[in-house]
Amino acid sequence: MIEAKICITLKKTVTDPQGITVKHALESLGYKEIEEVRVGKFIELKINTNKRKTARRHLDEMCKKLLANPVIENYGFAIKEVK
Amino acid sequence: MIEAKICITLKKTVTDPQGITVKHALESLGYKEIEEVRVGKFIELKINTNKRKTARRHLDEMCKKLLANPVIENYGFAIKEVK
Repeated sequence: MIEAKICITLKKTVTDPQGITVKHALESLGYKEIEEVRVGKFIELKINTNKRKTARRHLDEMCKKLLANPVIENYGFAIKEVK
Repeated sequence: MIEAKICITLKKTVTDPQGITVKHALESLGYKEIEEVRVGKFIELKINTNKRKTARRHLDEMCKKLLANPVIENYGFAIKEVK
């Protein structure tokens, strides 16, 4: 079994309204030192295989096809074997 | 300047309908080997300070108060200094 952790973030050039809202909310709670907030997605996937190379290739395809929007988002993932 | 990366995930005991939907979508794309999908949030924060200890304490408070729901979610963060 392979466990993958995928982080999907908006590209730097894309405005993040959700992040701006969170920043304002944190400021209103008293955290004035916040410079920037960007909100993305975190996806945990368990894949029933032991082939790391195939898993990596499939994960890349999944991100491109479904999980992320490559036009406006960047993605990265890390995999590890679990029992 | 400190950059923090926060991962927020649903607790293991909490059902994740979004994750189930994503799993089905991936299966319909031909990825039959997927065992489980859990969808969480990934937040990047830039804090205008160099005090790592204070930053860590503030981040923990922010997660508890606003960013995560400690009843149903777990959170973790990593910080690093940037210029």
